[in-house]
Amino acid sequence: MDVTFVLLGATGDLTKRKLIPAIYHLLANKAVDKVLLVGVARRKIAIQSILKEAKTFISKPNNNIWQKIVVSSYYQQLDFYDEEHYAALGRRLENLEAKHELSGNRLFYLATLPQHFDTITLNLSKTKIARQTSQNWSRLVYEKPFGNDLASARKINSCISRAFREDQVYRIDHYLGKELVGNIAILRFTNRVFEPLWNRHHLESVQVTFDEDIGLAGRGNFYDKYGALKDVVQNHVLQILALIAMESPQKLTGKFIRDEKAKVLKKIKVSDVLLGQAKPYRKEPKVNPKSHTETFSAIKLNINNNRWRGVPFYIRAGKYLHRKEVSIHLKFKPIHCLLTTTCPSDTNYLTIRVNPNEGFTLELFAKVPGQANHVQSALMDHSHDRLRQISSPEAYQVLLHEVILGNQSLFVRDDEIEHAWKVIDSIKSRNWKVFPYPAGSPGPKELSLFEKKHKMRWR
Amino acid sequence: MDVTFVLLGATGDLTKRKLIPAIYHLLANKAVDKVLLVGVARRKIAIQSILKEAKTFISKPNNNIWQKIVVSSYYQQLDFYDEEHYAALGRRLENLEAKHELSGNRLFYLATLPQHFDTITLNLSKTKIARQTSQNWSRLVYEKPFGNDLASARKINSCISRAFREDQVYRIDHYLGKELVGNIAILRFTNRVFEPLWNRHHLESVQVTFDEDIGLAGRGNFYDKYGALKDVVQNHVLQILALIAMESPQKLTGKFIRDEKAKVLKKIKVSDVLLGQAKPYRKEPKVNPKSHTETFSAIKLNINNNRWRGVPFYIRAGKYLHRKEVSIHLKFKPIHCLLTTTCPSDTNYLTIRVNPNEGFTLELFAKVPGQANHVQSALMDHSHDRLRQISSPEAYQVLLHEVILGNQSLFVRDDEIEHAWKVIDSIKSRNWKVFPYPAGSPGPKELSLFEKKHKMRWR
Repeated sequence: MDVTFVLLGATGDLTKRKLIPAIYHLLANKAVDKVLLVGVARRKIAIQSILKEAKTFISKPNNNIWQKIVVSSYYQQLDFYDEEHYAALGRRLENLEAKHELSGNRLFYLATLPQHFDTITLNLSKTKIARQTSQNWSRLVYEKPFGNDLASARKINSCISRAFREDQVYRIDHYLGKELVGNIAILRFTNRVFEPLWNRHHLESVQVTFDEDIGLAGRGNFYDKYGALKDVVQNHVLQILALIAMESPQKLTGKFIRDEKAKVLKKIKVSDVLLGQAKPYRKEPKVNPKSHTETFSAIKLNINNNRWRGVPFYIRAGKYLHRKEVSIHLKFKPIHCLLTTTCPSDTNYLTIRVNPNEGFTLELFAKVPGQANHVQSALMDHSHDRLRQISSPEAYQVLLHEVILGNQSLFVRDDEIEHAWKVIDSIKSRNWKVFPYPAGSPGPKELSLFEKKHKMRWR
Repeated sequence: MDVTFVLLGATGDLTKRKLIPAIYHLLANKAVDKVLLVGVARRKIAIQSILKEAKTFISKPNNNIWQKIVVSSYYQQLDFYDEEHYAALGRRLENLEAKHELSGNRLFYLATLPQHFDTITLNLSKTKIARQTSQNWSRLVYEKPFGNDLASARKINSCISRAFREDQVYRIDHYLGKELVGNIAILRFTNRVFEPLWNRHHLESVQVTFDEDIGLAGRGNFYDKYGALKDVVQNHVLQILALIAMESPQKLTGKFIRDEKAKVLKKIKVSDVLLGQAKPYRKEPKVNPKSHTETFSAIKLNINNNRWRGVPFYIRAGKYLHRKEVSIHLKFKPIHCLLTTTCPSDTNYLTIRVNPNEGFTLELFAKVPGQANHVQSALMDHSHDRLRQISSPEAYQVLLHEVILGNQSLFVRDDEIEHAWKVIDSIKSRNWKVFPYPAGSPGPKELSLFEKKHKMRWR
């Protein structure tokens, strides 16, 4: 398989940090035989300077493989709003594909701001440079964020659907490429130990935690318009939640999984929200010093269907926190206690650790050795890295590979994106107070009131 | 608490190897403050020679504690069939208890052959040396085997019940003192992850394995009359099975657990049997060279109630085998496979390891790192020793402690014993062929036919 990667927004961070290293690893692992790499952006720049930076994000690059990338990489300056430029890009691609003897499979990666998505989509369509034939495919990958609210997402979707078929369209949520997110459905649906318990009869609550210890990392301009809800909850957190909460799909493949995720996202009803802003946030470069943008959010929501009626889902996402942890906690209901000694003070948990220390843990109770009928908790842990002595592949490598294979399971469909935006819009439509919190803390102190009010405890 | 231990059968192996070391550890752990130890048997022997041997079975004995035992140990020669001798024993006990200032709690341990049980019981009762007052207790502990078949067990039980109250009676099955046997009910009834799955809807089959690599260890005379079924299956294996299969007791305490165990033992129906005899067995000392006694048995049985209808239980027990392993395997039913790649070839298992390497393991399926929708098995292990950096206490120490506390949970009630003998008698009533097998093998080669016939596989 050979592929022409057209990276739109090639001067941005994502291209250097993630996309080019991912393409390198696909070549190294022989997931593709041959590539053409065409960087596209507004600025005048040499491809070498992009490659030079990108190389620093590959650990121990093999020189032979890296040279394959160097000799087949090009740059094309392009104004996203000038149709003529797309025609020129089309001619360039044809020439380069002929020169490098490529079959013309084209992967267009839109790593730009979402406001350019419809213009780029329209122009790629008009100039027919993303056309498919019986010999080769063209696929379009849209980086997140996909719009800014329901209206803008709908606008992009309708533009895409007029120009392309949905099976050519890959909306990125790179968390879907994470090992343990990919493991959610496998754990649920291949284990008899879990599947029958995955419902309101046996689960007391579900928590999804998305804690980051870092701040903005220079993204002030972007982040101040988005905030935690739009930057992380709308996509990563709600996608994880949808995988946890969806009904059993007919098969574990693209269409069926996306059908079920869309259905469950549609059923979400937010019942409480707590927003916070880290104290150093307003002093960040390019952030409005009077900004009310939230850098932390905690949400209680319900899913109004037969499986989940009465089971609260708690999600939280924030930056500048005391720890880095993306994890899912399924808390089992208590069991009728038959002990006459001391009963367990807590219940069983299944914890899926997405990041860091990918893996999952089952917290059980077992006998205290040497003492009849005394229980203590017994942790059963499964770390993914330990499993094969290799570290899991990077999400972008996984996702680009899936695009090349034409498998849409790990990408978000138009209706899913819109349902998720509806959830965010419903929160934004009310003016929630934003409580300050110190950097390096677990969030606003009002969190403990939230715990008390809902009789829950964050893990 | 102080206790007078009266060890009947004091010249036997059990007293030296297990009982005196267990009493030592009870003292060392301050489970008792003060003891009097009176060895009783037919032979003329000095208590010192018994103690000397017993000490070799204590690893790193503390001298202070050992001295406490030495200065309070005595020997009384006694003919089990001479009532006068019991009267003399009674006077001796009173004198010694007065001398050592003990309050007169008496634990009579019948470590003799079962044919003496009714005579000893009767004489202890007649001479009133096992009487209870409001100040102190007397308890009788009966070592296994408890009889030789249903009729003999009934005879002993009826003799006991005429002489003593059932709450004074402790029938030993030392496997009930093993850590992981004690853990069975805890695992089942304190974990929401297991309890709802513990039935025919979610379990495909249950295996109890009792493999020993040793031979007779000098017990030829006894073993040739008993064999694997009476020596191990009637007690250890059926008790483990009863704990696995019983209905939820009202509370995890003596009476309720014993009620439920008795009920389920009553429901056992044996449907297939395979017996074997190790080739070196007939050459063992004191074994009939034409013996047909089985040293191996594999049994398929069913429990005809609502929880277990249709779930086969497979038990096996043998000596001279290729490994030492006592374990319980709960095999979960397969799950409807949603994968379009490869489906798991096996199902989930919960394995409880009683001996060696006490602990439990849950075999799940998880994603193969780096490959979407490929599964591999993921072992979650919990080793009991690792838990507290200490090794679990010896079964006899646990059991003697329970007797002293007056807790009967870990002892077998009259009805349980009789139901278990009924199972063994029903097997013995048919003439099963006994197939030879080489020492150090997994058993008779006919085992593979057994597997094929029942579409099962021994783990």
